[in-house]
Amino acid sequence: MRKPNMLNVNHRSYKLPTRPTVVVCVDGCEPDYLAQAVATGHMPWLKRALAEGTGIVADCVVPTFTNPNNLSIVTGAPPSVHGICGNYLFDVASGTEVMMNDPKWLRAPTLLAALADAGKKVCVITAKDKLRRLLGHKMKGICFSSEKSNDVSMEENGIADVLSIVGLPVPDVYSAALSEFVFAAGVKLMQRERPDVMYLSTTDYVQHKHAPGTEGANAFYSMMDGYLSQLDELGCVIALTADHGMNAKVAMDGQPDVIYLQDWFDAQLGAGVARVILPITDPYVVHHGALGSFATAYLPAGSDVGAVIASMKKIKGMEAVYSREEAAAHFELPADRIGDVVCVSERFTVIGTAASRHDLSGLDAPLRSHGGVSEQRVPLILNRKLPGLDMTRRFRNFDAFDLALNYAQ
Amino acid sequence: MRKPNMLNVNHRSYKLPTRPTVVVCVDGCEPDYLAQAVATGHMPWLKRALAEGTGIVADCVVPTFTNPNNLSIVTGAPPSVHGICGNYLFDVASGTEVMMNDPKWLRAPTLLAALADAGKKVCVITAKDKLRRLLGHKMKGICFSSEKSNDVSMEENGIADVLSIVGLPVPDVYSAALSEFVFAAGVKLMQRERPDVMYLSTTDYVQHKHAPGTEGANAFYSMMDGYLSQLDELGCVIALTADHGMNAKVAMDGQPDVIYLQDWFDAQLGAGVARVILPITDPYVVHHGALGSFATAYLPAGSDVGAVIASMKKIKGMEAVYSREEAAAHFELPADRIGDVVCVSERFTVIGTAASRHDLSGLDAPLRSHGGVSEQRVPLILNRKLPGLDMTRRFRNFDAFDLALNYAQ
Repeated sequence: MRKPNMLNVNHRSYKLPTRPTVVVCVDGCEPDYLAQAVATGHMPWLKRALAEGTGIVADCVVPTFTNPNNLSIVTGAPPSVHGICGNYLFDVASGTEVMMNDPKWLRAPTLLAALADAGKKVCVITAKDKLRRLLGHKMKGICFSSEKSNDVSMEENGIADVLSIVGLPVPDVYSAALSEFVFAAGVKLMQRERPDVMYLSTTDYVQHKHAPGTEGANAFYSMMDGYLSQLDELGCVIALTADHGMNAKVAMDGQPDVIYLQDWFDAQLGAGVARVILPITDPYVVHHGALGSFATAYLPAGSDVGAVIASMKKIKGMEAVYSREEAAAHFELPADRIGDVVCVSERFTVIGTAASRHDLSGLDAPLRSHGGVSEQRVPLILNRKLPGLDMTRRFRNFDAFDLALNYAQ
Repeated sequence: MRKPNMLNVNHRSYKLPTRPTVVVCVDGCEPDYLAQAVATGHMPWLKRALAEGTGIVADCVVPTFTNPNNLSIVTGAPPSVHGICGNYLFDVASGTEVMMNDPKWLRAPTLLAALADAGKKVCVITAKDKLRRLLGHKMKGICFSSEKSNDVSMEENGIADVLSIVGLPVPDVYSAALSEFVFAAGVKLMQRERPDVMYLSTTDYVQHKHAPGTEGANAFYSMMDGYLSQLDELGCVIALTADHGMNAKVAMDGQPDVIYLQDWFDAQLGAGVARVILPITDPYVVHHGALGSFATAYLPAGSDVGAVIASMKKIKGMEAVYSREEAAAHFELPADRIGDVVCVSERFTVIGTAASRHDLSGLDAPLRSHGGVSEQRVPLILNRKLPGLDMTRRFRNFDAFDLALNYAQ
C-alpha cells in the first residue's frame, strides 16, 4: 500500500515536498566554472551554500548531451529506462534519421508528471523549446520555454502572458539572455504562484564560448548566483546540477580537433556502407558545429564488429570503443536505439561525420564541446545539509530529486 | 665502429647537427595554452610553424614533474634509465628525505655532454638554478640559469657577464621575467656565439597562475612567440616540447581539492607508521604549496601492500594506485627510488602529506598544478617537416632530440 506522502516513480521512492523545491539543471556546467567563479568572488550565494549545505561532484549520463541528461534528472533513471539516448537518432523502423524531441520516444513517466498527479503544483521552465515537450509530457502545470515565451497559452503551457509577468523581452535563441530569462521567470513565478516543485533548465550558449574563470563565464555565473540567492530567500530547497560538463576541443593550431568518422568508415568500407550518427545533432548547431565527443555507427549485416572496434581503437584521439551490448551495459543505454558500435573521443577531440557535412563557419571562438566521458563530472549541490546520506557512494545528476525530496526537506 | 657523424647515447643513435638546433622545454605547457593563444592571434610564428612544420601531442613522463622530464629530454630516456624520478625523494640508504638536484643521482649520460664531447658547441639556459647542475653534468660549454645570471663565471658556467650580454636585470625567481630571460639570452647567444646545440628550459610560474586563453597566459605565449621567431630567422631547427601539462586543482568552493595522504595513513596505521613522499617538493613551493597529483609512500615491513592499495583506491579523487613493481613497469621508473605504493590523483585533485604541513597562504590564485596522468599530454613541435617519420606511433617529449637531429636537419 502506498504511503500517502510518498511517491514511487521508476522504482525509486520520493517523499512529497513540504516546502518549495527547485531543481536547476545548468547546461554545460563543468564544475570548474563554479570553482573559478566562487574563488574570485563572483558567487557569494554559492560560496555560502557550499559551506552551509552540500557540494558533491556527481557523474552525469554518457552520452554527455542535453536531452538524455535532462530526462534522466526528471525520471531519476538512466536512458536504458527512459529511452532518450541523444538529441538525434537513427530510427531503424523507418530507416530515417530523426530528432528525439517527440514524447513518443519517452519510455518512462517523469517525476514532474507524478508530482502533479499527486496534487503538487509543478512549474517547468526551459531555455530552448526542444526540451519542453519531453519534460512536460503528461504533466499538469506550468511548462514553457524562454525561446517561445511570447507564444504561450493556458491550454498548452498552463500560463498566459509570460512576458509581462517576467518583464523581459523574448531573448535571442543564441544568447546568455535565453538562460537568464529562465532564472528571472523562475523567481517571478516562485513569488507569484509559489509552486511546490520547480524545474529550471538553461542552455549552454555561454559555456560553449567561454572557459571557466574567464570574464564571459564569470558574468554568467554571477547573474545565476543572484537569482539563486533570491530563490533561497524565498525559502526554497535548491538542488543544482548539470546535464554535462564542457571542455576545449581544439588542436594546437586552434582549430577543432576532429575525427571525421564517416570519412574514416567510407575509406575503410566504401562510401555510405556504414552510417555514423552524432546524437549531439539538433536544430541549434551554430555554436558547436554538431561536433561532440560521442558517436554511434550502424554497420552492414554480417560485419566483423570485433575487427571494426579494434581498428577504431587505433584512431588518434579515440578514448574508447564499445559494441552495442557493451555500451548499453556500461553507459545504461537502450540497446535498440544505438548502433552496432559506440565510441567516445578524448578530452580535446571531437567526432564528426564527413568533413563536408560540418559547417564550422559559425564558430567565432575556439571550439568547446561535450559528449564524452571527459565531460561526465557535474555539480550536485544542495543548499541544505543532507543528514543520513552516505557520502562515499557514487552520485549521479539524476539523484537530484532524491536528495532534494528525501534528504533536504 | 662508430660512424663519424653519429652519436650513440643511452642506446639511441643521433646524427650530429648540421645547423644550429634549439630544443625548448616550456615548463607546464599544457597544449591548450598554445591552442588558445594561436586561435586568438597571439602566436603568429607558431601558427606558421604548425602549418609548415610538424605538430604532435606527445606523452611526457609520469610523475609529470620538472626534473624527471627535463632529464628525460636531455638523455632521450625514461627515469628507469636516468634515475631522476622526482624533485625530491626518500633516500633509503641514509633514511632521510632529500632534494634530487645533485648530479650524484643521475645514472645516465646526457646528450648535451655527448654532443659537446663530439666537438659540438653546446649552450644550456635554465630558468631556475636547481636544474642547471643536473643538465650541465659533465658537459663542456655554456650552462647557466636566469636565477643566478648575476653570478656566473667562465670556470663554472663557460660564460662571464651574462647580464651585460643579455641587457636585462636579474629577474625575480617568482616571475614571468625569469622565463623571458631564458629566451632573451638564447637569442643573444645564438647571435653572438652561434652554438650548434642549445637547450632552453623555462619555469611554470605563469602556468601555475593562469589558465589557457586568459590574458596572463596569452601575454606569456606572445612573448615566447617573438623570441622563437627570432631564433627561426637565425636559421635554427627548433623543437618545442614541455616537461608536463597543467590543470586547475580546485573543488567547487574554489579551494584546493586535496587528499591529505599522510593524515589518511596516520588514521589507518597510526601516526608516522607510513611515510608519504611528494616528489613535487622543491625549494620553490609558494605558487603550488607542494601540492601535485602524484605521491609515493613507504610502508612498514610486512605490510599487506595489496590490501593497502585496495583501500587507497577507494579514496575520492584517487585515479590509480600501483605497487612499486607495477609503477616501475607502467611509468618506467627506478624501482629502488620509489616507495611501496605509488598513486596518482584525478585531474582536479592533488595529494598532500598532512594538512598541517602545507602552507597555502602564498596561493594568490585558484590552485593549478600537475604531477598526474591528467598532465601527461605535451606539445612536440618542430619548425620543419619530418620526412620518413611514422606519425601513427606514440611520441614522448624525450623524442625531441631524436626528431630535431635525425629528421629535421
